[in-house]
Amino acid sequence: MPLNLKTYTEHFTNPLYLESGRILEPYDITYETYGHINEDKSNVVIICHALTGSHHAAGTYEGENKAGWWDGLIGPNKPIDTNKYFVISTNVIASCFGSTGPMSPQYPYNDPYRYKFPVVTIKDMVKAQRILFDRLDIHRVYAIIGGSMGGMQALQFAIHYPNFSEKIIALATTHATQPWAIAFNKIAQESILKDPDFKQGYYDPDFIKEQGLSGMAIGRMAGHISFLSPDSMKEKFGREYKRDDGLYELFGKFQVESYLEYNGYNFTKWFDPLTYLYITKAINIYDLSRGFDSLKEALKKISSELHLISFENDLLFKSFEMKEISDTLKEIGNTNHFYKNIQSNYGHDAFLVELDKFDTYICEILK
Amino acid sequence: MPLNLKTYTEHFTNPLYLESGRILEPYDITYETYGHINEDKSNVVIICHALTGSHHAAGTYEGENKAGWWDGLIGPNKPIDTNKYFVISTNVIASCFGSTGPMSPQYPYNDPYRYKFPVVTIKDMVKAQRILFDRLDIHRVYAIIGGSMGGMQALQFAIHYPNFSEKIIALATTHATQPWAIAFNKIAQESILKDPDFKQGYYDPDFIKEQGLSGMAIGRMAGHISFLSPDSMKEKFGREYKRDDGLYELFGKFQVESYLEYNGYNFTKWFDPLTYLYITKAINIYDLSRGFDSLKEALKKISSELHLISFENDLLFKSFEMKEISDTLKEIGNTNHFYKNIQSNYGHDAFLVELDKFDTYICEILK
Repeated sequence: MPLNLKTYTEHFTNPLYLESGRILEPYDITYETYGHINEDKSNVVIICHALTGSHHAAGTYEGENKAGWWDGLIGPNKPIDTNKYFVISTNVIASCFGSTGPMSPQYPYNDPYRYKFPVVTIKDMVKAQRILFDRLDIHRVYAIIGGSMGGMQALQFAIHYPNFSEKIIALATTHATQPWAIAFNKIAQESILKDPDFKQGYYDPDFIKEQGLSGMAIGRMAGHISFLSPDSMKEKFGREYKRDDGLYELFGKFQVESYLEYNGYNFTKWFDPLTYLYITKAINIYDLSRGFDSLKEALKKISSELHLISFENDLLFKSFEMKEISDTLKEIGNTNHFYKNIQSNYGHDAFLVELDKFDTYICEILK
Repeated sequence: MPLNLKTYTEHFTNPLYLESGRILEPYDITYETYGHINEDKSNVVIICHALTGSHHAAGTYEGENKAGWWDGLIGPNKPIDTNKYFVISTNVIASCFGSTGPMSPQYPYNDPYRYKFPVVTIKDMVKAQRILFDRLDIHRVYAIIGGSMGGMQALQFAIHYPNFSEKIIALATTHATQPWAIAFNKIAQESILKDPDFKQGYYDPDFIKEQGLSGMAIGRMAGHISFLSPDSMKEKFGREYKRDDGLYELFGKFQVESYLEYNGYNFTKWFDPLTYLYITKAINIYDLSRGFDSLKEALKKISSELHLISFENDLLFKSFEMKEISDTLKEIGNTNHFYKNIQSNYGHDAFLVELDKFDTYICEILK
């Protein structure tokens, strides 16, 4: 069977009550589906994306030369087998790929929210998705899977909608964002805010897509340091120098510099700076224990079969952070969870690029 | 005996032939001394500073409220005991604290070099110091000590002037700068270059000292991530929020963000952006094996007693980098070197702030 890739946008007019006490109203959620839903709707798998990801997790649109970000994992006969599962991947609120975000028009006006957009949390993102699934008449799913910020969403689902998913798989994530991850986000936020072309939030998005925004590029470069690891950098770049650049030229470049520049500036062509500020904010204030007396109390809510997968040498969400979740679950007598630390030198991005290290494991979990 | 803190600047009119083939002429070197030189000049200890350090390593000038950067280590009855040793600490060329750098006037004009300043290397910095010591009629010293970029200088001394120092102590450094360290420098360089107040190198230094340079502040923030470690950040900041800032305010701050901001912006009041570009360039292209067939061949030149000190959890110069030096020395049969990895959670800055972890060891080495 083919992938059966489809994209939809659902519009909601009921207010979304946010964790902050503020309201988002109305709002849209854009999502993709792959495969076919079965009669008793027992084959639904939810995919949650990371900071700069989107609902476009698999397949290739006409005219596109790159497939969705987890295409290696999702598709016919792939680990998340679309011949068996009906997969839904939604774009989070506050993002810039169709769901309502800071550059969406602020109803009833046509001007974008910009700073008037409310701060949203990972819990809010999950709540909005839950409302979407209600609209789709899906009230229980087989599995929810996500890495990085997607893993945060998967864990929030596990705690706040304990009967919603049979299985939860969270990769390369944490129970609460730690100061080093916040520090990397800070570089990006500060760098965006201080770029004069950002115009204190009143930038022209078309101008930025065309000209780039160096502040966001620099922030993304800092991000890339946190996505890799010393080992993967050594292997990828070593001390190789860019051909034709002189070693003693002030602006001569090492390969690693050239890589950061290319990826940094390219990023500004397809991502929105205010979205970057709002989503990094959501990541920074993410803390599973908020609203509970402790992490232990929060984790007691979980009733799904829970799979925690960390990657050795992940600099952003260190493997011990996921082990802390597992250790806390053990303490409270949860016997329905499984923690696996994958040996990888790649760093945080392993969940996106080293699929062969965990794809069979995902297969086994879903079986 | 008191510290006997003195500052001098020596002027050199002979050309300094640089590794790049270019010439620096004339040039100044600013340096401090502590203690008293003995009759046979056998008690000289050289201190080498790091990226943003200066010759001001110990003591407190009148009106100053902070002592030199290694004041805990250098002074009467301290590990580098100025009652016994005559200590010289020089400001490297390309720096901005008195020695000739990119903002020095380009002779015979009064305008600063700016981009006309030649790229200098760690080897050049060491060569300039060696010429200074010649001028001071010092032809052999007891010890050379430095951390981070100071350690690079100490190692370059060991290789290029093998008979110059009886003992060499290099801390928190490497044999060649690795891509992750280059990547952190890249953030700072790009961020400085893209700041409109940098005016593509033609900034007004007084304006920057007064108003700050956000590009350099952001770069310094990235630097601070590399100077700390997850453990020290967790201990220092945790997920503490700045008092009076609301969690759901877009610009509400975690303590770690507030720390980075304060240190980043404060830094621009006392450091020069072109110097930052030139010194990070020198660090990036530092490679002990340059000019030799291999690191092994380079290390064969060493005849001083060599002490290598790394810090566990140093993210910038990983402890295995110094172990590589030690392993290579073992391979070539060097029995006059000692490698010690200090247990510390602090990260790279341990060589500046956790003196109690290695001060007795320095004492023992110097005895």
